[in-house]
Amino acid sequence: MKIHDLATPALVVDAAGLAHNLATMAAALPGARCRPHVKAHKTTALARRQAAVGHHAFCAATPREIIGMAAAGLGDDLLLANETVNAERLRAMANTGARVTVAVDSAETVEAAAANGIREVVVDVDVGLPRCGCAPEDAGRIADLARSRGMAVRGVMGYEGHVVGNPDREWRATQTERCMALLLAAHDAVGGDVVSGGGTGTFDLNTWCTEIQAGSYTLMDTAYAKLGVPFRQALWVEATVVSVSAKGWFVADCGLKALGMDHGDPSVDAGEVLFCSDEHVTIRPGAESTPRVGDRVRVWPAHVDPTIALHERMHIADGEDVVETWEVDLRGWSA
Amino acid sequence: MKIHDLATPALVVDAAGLAHNLATMAAALPGARCRPHVKAHKTTALARRQAAVGHHAFCAATPREIIGMAAAGLGDDLLLANETVNAERLRAMANTGARVTVAVDSAETVEAAAANGIREVVVDVDVGLPRCGCAPEDAGRIADLARSRGMAVRGVMGYEGHVVGNPDREWRATQTERCMALLLAAHDAVGGDVVSGGGTGTFDLNTWCTEIQAGSYTLMDTAYAKLGVPFRQALWVEATVVSVSAKGWFVADCGLKALGMDHGDPSVDAGEVLFCSDEHVTIRPGAESTPRVGDRVRVWPAHVDPTIALHERMHIADGEDVVETWEVDLRGWSA
Repeated sequence: MKIHDLATPALVVDAAGLAHNLATMAAALPGARCRPHVKAHKTTALARRQAAVGHHAFCAATPREIIGMAAAGLGDDLLLANETVNAERLRAMANTGARVTVAVDSAETVEAAAANGIREVVVDVDVGLPRCGCAPEDAGRIADLARSRGMAVRGVMGYEGHVVGNPDREWRATQTERCMALLLAAHDAVGGDVVSGGGTGTFDLNTWCTEIQAGSYTLMDTAYAKLGVPFRQALWVEATVVSVSAKGWFVADCGLKALGMDHGDPSVDAGEVLFCSDEHVTIRPGAESTPRVGDRVRVWPAHVDPTIALHERMHIADGEDVVETWEVDLRGWSA
Repeated sequence: MKIHDLATPALVVDAAGLAHNLATMAAALPGARCRPHVKAHKTTALARRQAAVGHHAFCAATPREIIGMAAAGLGDDLLLANETVNAERLRAMANTGARVTVAVDSAETVEAAAANGIREVVVDVDVGLPRCGCAPEDAGRIADLARSRGMAVRGVMGYEGHVVGNPDREWRATQTERCMALLLAAHDAVGGDVVSGGGTGTFDLNTWCTEIQAGSYTLMDTAYAKLGVPFRQALWVEATVVSVSAKGWFVADCGLKALGMDHGDPSVDAGEVLFCSDEHVTIRPGAESTPRVGDRVRVWPAHVDPTIALHERMHIADGEDVVETWEVDLRGWSA
């Protein structure tokens, strides 16, 4: 099958770009130095490629992702890098047979984990992003509470999520150092082997973590492309032109239901995106472009993670040939 | 089951609000005067409620929606209010056994429809929204072309999508009149019984269309709530507080993968939304609010259509009781 034969909108992965990204990360952060974040792609077939280049520990944002990874035989070392107090989901993760570690940042999350069979935790520490994570000075207390409930404490995690997306590399470096000083102070109080954090934007700047939680590096997007990291945009949404107006625009069938929109409009090679509707993108064609109904357009998403979450599958392309199709099998929240 | 028992994030529909919205529309635009747009909710169980109050003709944005509606026995009169040149999907729609009409706005879309068994079309006319639709002066020519290919031309459609969302009702009224003058001119050249257009924001202002393509009125969102239309917000995303910071924020498990973000951040009753991440919303609590881990939060989406498209199911609540659960069965694009 050729890309042109795919019904649209369709997620397409450039196999060469993906291979480049996987090899580049495996060289920079081999083996356990990278703990790939599956939230970025929600696809066990892609996680299997990450394992094939040496990364056997993964992290995830939802119990669904953890349970799906375990079911796919990728459960050597799974970290829920997020908090939950849902008893049923905690038990389901504990019962996968995989090695499952969960993040805790409060007495409530510790008690919920202990009560539902979780055996290992990391203490999630607020390093400056206004989101989850305990205060650094509370980390030791939370670790002690977890141990008192019979759980092993593997260490700490702290995500500099307010830093990873800034295009100024120097600023990212300086800020990451500040964040990690907080995380290392917490680690002193907590103990354990794991200091987990970082992302695609700081993968080579964050030299304090023992493992980097990068995910977007695999496929990238227009926002991450501005950071100057050595990864290629390897995912687009293939669309078909369905209407051409003499008034100076054309329309393709990839709308905001096929795109994560929180980082804004996508980009196209053939012109300027004017706006997205539910099932349409309206484009002003470039000077060289004479779009016709039935033509194909590659739509480059601004944010890869939520874009993939909207699709049932992704197609892997070697040039114009579709060589594999992978189910986006970790979508949604149900077990 | 109670709402509190739902694993989160979860779409919850207020049964009373939905019933109010359905009754209000059925009174204002009874029977065929409203052609509900299923793209808003992508749920045949909800479409069945719309049929129960008298609307037996529906429109849709994707072939998937048309095929699913036909399979659900709701195929009395289905309009694909959108263009496609995908032969397989056109044939699949033509072969449903339902009455299927598709929009055309070019020679290419006419030829594709005719070549793949479509028997009825409407001519889609550009009434000012920079998207699909032929120029009004081309509508007669396209209708003639469709008839020459053996298809019946039922009339015209033209969507004033650039008008429906403006909070100024007077402006909406004036602009709608201008748009509909273009559509009626095209209709003069095309013929047929159908003049289709409008939406929730113009349902009682657009008195020129024979049928109004409203969808969002069923469940509403924070953007539509600003329009002063007589429909209630009847859908929220139920979320659980997973982290509370002493620094003045708390975090619930409803992030941008559970919300259409193209209209911006959602709203909450208990405070101010600071930002959304993939699986989190960070909230500054109101003065009266003392959030605790495990508490529930109702997150009100800014845009209902893409929010629903992210969820596998919606739960119908009568007070605190979950009385039904409906599959969002028209998601995605595959047949």
